[in-house]
Amino acid sequence: MAPSYKLTYFNLTALGEPIRFLFHYGGIDFVDNRIEKADWPALKPKTPYGVLPLLEIDGKQVLHQSVAIARYVAKVVNLVGKNDLENWEIDAAVDTVNDVRAKLAAAAFETDETRKAALFETLKDDTLPFFLSRLDSQAKANKGYLAVGRLTWADLFFVGILDFLNILAQQDLVAAYPNLQAVRKNVLAINSIKAWVAKRPKDQL
Amino acid sequence: MAPSYKLTYFNLTALGEPIRFLFHYGGIDFVDNRIEKADWPALKPKTPYGVLPLLEIDGKQVLHQSVAIARYVAKVVNLVGKNDLENWEIDAAVDTVNDVRAKLAAAAFETDETRKAALFETLKDDTLPFFLSRLDSQAKANKGYLAVGRLTWADLFFVGILDFLNILAQQDLVAAYPNLQAVRKNVLAINSIKAWVAKRPKDQL
Repeated sequence: MAPSYKLTYFNLTALGEPIRFLFHYGGIDFVDNRIEKADWPALKPKTPYGVLPLLEIDGKQVLHQSVAIARYVAKVVNLVGKNDLENWEIDAAVDTVNDVRAKLAAAAFETDETRKAALFETLKDDTLPFFLSRLDSQAKANKGYLAVGRLTWADLFFVGILDFLNILAQQDLVAAYPNLQAVRKNVLAINSIKAWVAKRPKDQL
Repeated sequence: MAPSYKLTYFNLTALGEPIRFLFHYGGIDFVDNRIEKADWPALKPKTPYGVLPLLEIDGKQVLHQSVAIARYVAKVVNLVGKNDLENWEIDAAVDTVNDVRAKLAAAAFETDETRKAALFETLKDDTLPFFLSRLDSQAKANKGYLAVGRLTWADLFFVGILDFLNILAQQDLVAAYPNLQAVRKNVLAINSIKAWVAKRPKDQL
């Protein structure tokens, strides 16, 4: 019997969406359990490390850590590398996207307005061009994918989280980067992903 | 012929040490290339994303992203899981240790002294007890290891980076956590690791 999956996350794309993309890509049914913000304080202490997403398998095993979950589901849907070196390349791309996310989050969630403005200044002048130009070159070398020259979970991870990164950045991060646009186009052209994106709930930020 | 490995990092434990631990564990020769701080500005622009460590294999392929490198070397030395679910568990433990590192680094590298003090207060009262007590329970459930009830690269990752985390935290993070102490003891009791720790260069922070 096929395993049953329940993904618990907020009613947001953000860290949950790469996992949802992977399930949809693989045509795998899963319960897309979206909890209301009001219910979070009661649920939080019952989670392994106080954060979401969580993936429940067959109602028993509960997986946490969004990237580790995504890597697990990527194996289920066969979007991983063919060998250890390919898997390193995919993992490194995902970690680099996550480094960008961490830098954006540090600025976006800063509560001191002066400091926030300074952080966004550094992002705009330095950090984002540095990372995005390198990621763009990487996508060019890989023909419109982030790693190993073909579609992998790194691409679904990037495009799945990109809407959220753009909200954090207050801009379309890939606007000046044609090869990163190609990654987005390639992922969003996948029929199952396209169908999901057309019908998915709107983010409640 | 066995591949040749060259690890390039600073003359520090920090992000390089989990990878060094893995090589030593596996009895695999590698060039432990430690660059001087003075040479870093010239090298930095030549690296893929402006950071170290890098792992060069056979003088051609250059791997970056410390966790992705560690996962790769863990496969070489056979310290990974037996199946996808075990690998998720190991990956999640590593990511949780890294979350702690990120929170410690944010406080330790803060330059505004008032803010730094406030960040350390939150760490001490809230973040560290929250994470460490949960990691300690996890180590208890896994009999002195962080995952799957036996030695994996998650343990070498944790203990390899722990000295650096302790420097950032300005305390021994595991002092109040007997099961995390057991993880450290188990890793440092491995002959090849013990021999390495006895002879390794002192950190130049």
